Parts: sequence; structure tokens; C-alpha cells
Amino acid sequence: MSSTEGDAAALIAGMGQRARMAARLLARAGTSDKAAALRSAAAAICEDASAILVANAEDLRRSDALPAAMRDRLALDPGRLEAVAAAVEAVSELPDLVGRVIDRTERPNGLVLERVRVPIGVVGIVYESRPNVTADAGALCLMAGNAAILRGGSEATGSNRAIHAAFARGIERAGLPPDAVQLVPTADRAAVGAMLRADGVLDLVIPRGGKGLVARVREEARVPVLAHLDGNNHVYVHASADPDMAERVVLNAKMRRTGVCGAMETLLIDRDYPHCAALVAALRHAGCVVKGDPLESPLDGLVEPATAADWDTEYLDAICAVALVDGPDAAMAHIARHGSGHTDAIVAADAAAAERFLAEVDSAIVLWNASTQFADGGEFGLGAEIGIATCRLHARGPVALEGLTTYKWVGRGAGQVRG
Amino acid sequence: MSSTEGDAAALIAGMGQRARMAARLLARAGTSDKAAALRSAAAAICEDASAILVANAEDLRRSDALPAAMRDRLALDPGRLEAVAAAVEAVSELPDLVGRVIDRTERPNGLVLERVRVPIGVVGIVYESRPNVTADAGALCLMAGNAAILRGGSEATGSNRAIHAAFARGIERAGLPPDAVQLVPTADRAAVGAMLRADGVLDLVIPRGGKGLVARVREEARVPVLAHLDGNNHVYVHASADPDMAERVVLNAKMRRTGVCGAMETLLIDRDYPHCAALVAALRHAGCVVKGDPLESPLDGLVEPATAADWDTEYLDAICAVALVDGPDAAMAHIARHGSGHTDAIVAADAAAAERFLAEVDSAIVLWNASTQFADGGEFGLGAEIGIATCRLHARGPVALEGLTTYKWVGRGAGQVRG
Repeated sequence: MSSTEGDAAALIAGMGQRARMAARLLARAGTSDKAAALRSAAAAICEDASAILVANAEDLRRSDALPAAMRDRLALDPGRLEAVAAAVEAVSELPDLVGRVIDRTERPNGLVLERVRVPIGVVGIVYESRPNVTADAGALCLMAGNAAILRGGSEATGSNRAIHAAFARGIERAGLPPDAVQLVPTADRAAVGAMLRADGVLDLVIPRGGKGLVARVREEARVPVLAHLDGNNHVYVHASADPDMAERVVLNAKMRRTGVCGAMETLLIDRDYPHCAALVAALRHAGCVVKGDPLESPLDGLVEPATAADWDTEYLDAICAVALVDGPDAAMAHIARHGSGHTDAIVAADAAAAERFLAEVDSAIVLWNASTQFADGGEFGLGAEIGIATCRLHARGPVALEGLTTYKWVGRGAGQVRG
Repeated sequence: MSSTEGDAAALIAGMGQRARMAARLLARAGTSDKAAALRSAAAAICEDASAILVANAEDLRRSDALPAAMRDRLALDPGRLEAVAAAVEAVSELPDLVGRVIDRTERPNGLVLERVRVPIGVVGIVYESRPNVTADAGALCLMAGNAAILRGGSEATGSNRAIHAAFARGIERAGLPPDAVQLVPTADRAAVGAMLRADGVLDLVIPRGGKGLVARVREEARVPVLAHLDGNNHVYVHASADPDMAERVVLNAKMRRTGVCGAMETLLIDRDYPHCAALVAALRHAGCVVKGDPLESPLDGLVEPATAADWDTEYLDAICAVALVDGPDAAMAHIARHGSGHTDAIVAADAAAAERFLAEVDSAIVLWNASTQFADGGEFGLGAEIGIATCRLHARGPVALEGLTTYKWVGRGAGQVRG
């Protein structure tokens, strides 16, 4: 371990110890206390608006070299900052799951067993660019009774610090420990490694970032991870699809916002679908570059040649790959091979074909006759989201409060012993 | 990577590929098909009884040098083998959770979302000694719709192969793919490393073994792990405890079976509890060595001196540590510091003290007035268990069919697009 790594490990261990103390208090905090703390944090963010916007302007000034999309994600203005505070308030109104009884059983010997929702404990969040995550993630963790250790991107250091200072002051003013939500003070990349290796200190790490971060998490993580990867999402247009619906869903799935993880990246069309050329033409007309096999007659003149890599590419841009397939089995085989298990949709009038797709496609979200862009905690009625999990355990798809809790078994007896 | 490691990685990758194909078929198999396959597997185990017992005798012959307790775990006889087959049959009668709707919501736009239970996929099980795990784990994984890759201990190689051959023949005879339950054919330790690093091949690894295996999993695992650690379990006797109940529960928790993970390892007694000496004397009378601080007057003459290490020791033997504590806060602080998050119990007549203990002790299982030896899937009414999870995510405590499933979101629409 280098001295930098040792410093980072010591930093995270110290933060983790304070977080553990705070988590014990938070686990026992009542719903109204947690909600009041979040309202106070939202108010503090509003109070500090000028300071936060100044810090953000300074971050933007330092980030001249970043791509425009990244600068846009980083930028705050009074309206965006108001939305940050409003999101924290909204989390305070979500139903508190901690202490809820999931199920209950009385054993023949009279022992009564309940499974009860409890917080996970200490949660680490590693994220990039968007400074609003500092407030969003802190609020969701706190409402679920968890302490949070946040590590934002170096490009947003000033913005994150200013938002975090307000947030922590707000919760402290409401009587909850400010260590409940801590921000890693250094932009040093060694801190991320220390978080990923902090087995026993952090109970969970949620990475939110690009492929570089995801690869690092895969390689280095010793703590459980709730992976939030990008989505290589498919829309499969079945031969029975209504052409108007297919066009509406496909255009929305690809073009509503091209940079979100729920965007369609590959369009699969049944070879028997009679409106293939019109559908592809509509995508082109909407400004989308379409890649495929120009030798397929309905695509001739409409597509740029696709390479093998296109089927595995998340463009996050106004580009999509299109393939003609021979029915549902071929479509599902394509998705099994190239999909990332995020969100995949079928457009079909044939209910049997659709139900097969819903049952057999093994992604976190499978949709019938709806746009993949619905992949979002708010759209799913969860009130918020800390990410969309593409791993298979604990939580899948949009993760909000429930995914930030776990359970324990509580047994009440009258002196029972085991025979 | 050494050539051995490369061979092991290739072996696991190949087995994983066949397991993935089998898992796709299993995920769609009906309850009756899975149950019939397990009944057929149980019958095949009975048919092969002589061959399995011969292989087991050979394993025992090779294992002369092992400790008696390990040889006992390894040994089969006709009665034990009948129990192995009966356990497989019992799993076939458990309720099938795959396809169950966990919850359902209709969004204002008419999109109907359900969370539906699905299998996890391909599950690896790494275990030691007990050859019955080959059948138990295979049965539970299959009933939950998962393919299993089993890697048993080298000392049980022959027994595991013989049981697995019968099991696989049984499920194949019933029309399910034999690759649904595969046994790693080599006793080479590199295979365990390859399983732990098989990100994308295995969806989950469940280790069942001693501290050496657990340490290796912590260091090497790149796949999600459902950790099944031993339990450093506590019974806390509150000042209000009924002395007869306290003695009954404590003796059962420690002495019913000393080698199980639910056994009490440390006894905490309120300094104000009037029957401390009698309780410790009862433990000694039952044949338990008690370690504590001989300078504490109620323990004087009853205990051997404890060292700091005793509070963190899982004896799995007729030995226990005892500490006097100043009330619930001190008891809970001791458990927070030294416990392993497995099973902890309070004996108390005072309901307020007991409820605080149940709420604040952060272990997978917390019990009031009941023995820690109830920590078992069968005793909890789950019908079986694949282990007791001491990790915090996905599943905690006894894990049976539900912990071997996950969920996906299924949305049905009428052409909805996102605004």
C-alpha cells in the first residue's frame, strides 16, 4: 500500500467510524425526526443559494476543458438549485419503511417470528458531475435510516462542498447527527479505492458513473456493490405491432432524451413487420443516425453499415443500431447476447408473443407497448431514485427507499428451547 | 495467471456456459416439472445407495487423519442417506415462488407495473465435509429455478460424485437438463478461486465453510457473495429474567449442540441479576467450561480467567465466555463490538428492555426468551435452508427458496411514451 493509499484508507476508516455512530442513532430515529431533518436541510440549501452558486461558477470556470454535456450536468442556476431543495423536501414525504413488518409467522411451539425492515447501515456513494446527487443521495440514505459517505467528482468539488455544508447544517439544526451524511473532503482518486476496499466499514457502495468507474468497481470492490450501469436497451417491434404505436414508442425510446440510461440503443424489427422502412425512415427524419445491414432490402438506402461492435454499443446519442430478426426467439436470443439487463421492450398486438417476451427476457425492466424511457424511479412511482440497479441481487431496476433497507428476523418467545 | 489458474478458469467458464443454458430452461419450468425432477433425483439417490456408501467408505478411509468431528460430518450410513433423499423430496413440496407477483401498481398514465419473482440464474456453492449438501443445495437451487455449480470439499470427493451422479440422472430422467446441477470434477483449490472470480459466469456464490474459506472469499470474490459465517452469538440475561427460564434457555443455547452456528458463545449477565452464580454453576454442571473474570465476586471460583480474545472467539465447543454487564446499554455495546451479526437473544420479563434489545441489536436474528439454537431454516418454517446469511444485503438469517430468487419489473402498457 502506498502512503497515499494508506492515507486514504485511514481517512475512510475515520469517516466510517463516525458514520457508524450516526447510523446507530439514525436507525432509531422516528419518521417525523428524519422528515424534519430533511426539511431543515432543504431550507439550509435555499439559505446558502448564493454561496452554492458562487462555488458552482468556480467549478465551471476550472472545467473549461470538459465536454459541453458534462458542463451542462455540472452547471447550477437558481432554478436548478431550487429543484435540488425541492427534491430533498419530496424525499421527506416518502413513506418510512424502517420498522415495517414484512411477514410474520407463529411456529407450532408458540415462537412468533417477524421479518422487520431495518436500514442497511453505512452506504457509500461514488458519483460524477451532477452536484444535485450530493443532496439527493444524502436525503434518500437518511430517510432510509442509513449514514452516507459521499464521494463526488473532482470537477464538482466546490459545488458539492457547498451543498453538503448546507445539508449537514440543516440536519444538525434539526437534532440529527451531522455525521449522518459526510462528504469525502479530497478529490484524490485513492479515496474511491479506499471506499471500495472498506469491508466492514461500508456496508454497501453505490457507484454512479461512466465505464471507467464501473470497471474499477468490478476490479477492486471488496464491499457489496449495487451496480448502476448504463443500459444497452432494446425495443423489439413484433410483426403484429400497430405501426402508429410502434413509431411513437420507438421514437420516444430513442429520441426523447438520448443521453439517459433508459434510452433505446438497438431496434429489433421482425422481418415480417410490414412497416420496417417507414419506421426506420421516421427515426432518420427525427435526426437519428441508423446503423444496420444495407444488404437487407428494407434497410437499403436508410442505414449506415453496422459493425459487430454496434450491437454492444451504448451510444447515449442520436444514433441507433437496427437489426431484422426472424421472430421472437431470434429477438430474445439477440437481447440475451448483447443486452445489459437494464430495460428491454416489445411492441406487439399479439398478447401471447408479448407475454413470452416479458417472461423470458431476463432484464431488470421488461415492458410491453411502452417506451424504455420510463426506466426511472419517479416514473415508477417510487418518488425518487438513487439509481437503476443492473445487478441481480438485493434490488433491481429503479432503487429508492426500499432498496436502501434490509431486514432482520425478530423472534418473541416464552422460554422456548430447541428439542 | 498460472496455467493451473487458467485451466480452472476455463473449466468454470465451460461449466458456467452449460449452466446458463440450463438456467434459461429452468426459469421457464413449471412447478410440477421441478417437483417431479426432485422426486426423481431422490429416487435415484435411493437406487444408488450401495454405490454412494462404498464411495463414502473410501472417502473415510482416505481421511484417517481428519479430526473426529469432521469425519462424523463426512460419514454416511443407510439411515443418513435415506434422510438425504427425504430432504430432496421435502424441497419438492415447498411452495414455488418463481412468477409470484410481489407488488403491483398502476401509474396515472395507465402503465401497469408488477414486480415478479424470478430465479437468480447460475449459483455457485462452495462447501466442506458434509456430502448431503450436494443434494440439499442442488435441490434448493433447482426448485428456485437456478442452475447450480457445486464444489465440495476434497475429503468428500467420492461421496459427492456418487450423490451428484444419481441426482443428475434423476433430473434428466424427469426431462430437465442434467447441466442444471453440476459438480466441479476436480478437487483442485484453483477451482474455488476461479468460481470466486467468475464475474458474469456465476451470478452468486454461497460459501459454506470454515474461516479459511471465508477469508479467501473476502479477498478474492469478484462475484456477489451470500456470506454464511459462523456465529459469535450472545445470550443476555436481563435483571428481570425468570431464573428458571434463563437457565433453560442458556443451557439449551450453549449445550444442545455445541458445534452449530446458532450456539451461544458468550453469556452476558446483568450485574443486578440475583441468580448469576447459580446460572454459571448450571452451565458447569452441564459440562461447560466457563471463562470470565474471577475477580468479579459472583464468578469467583466458577470461571477460568478469560483473555480479551475470548470475547471474539467462536468456540463451537462446550466452552463459553461470561461477562457481567451494567444493564442493557452495556450488553448491547458488548454485542455491537464483539458480535458477528448472526443470532443474539435476551431473556427478560421486562418487556420494555426486551423490545429495546430487539430493536437495537443489529443482528440477522434477534430473539426474546428463546434459545439461539432456533437459528435454522427448518425451525423458522422455511422448510429447508441453504445457509444462514450474516451479510446485510439481499437475504439475512436462514436462507431458503426466497433468498435464491430475485425480481424483475414487468410493465404492460398501451403505447405509453414519456413526456
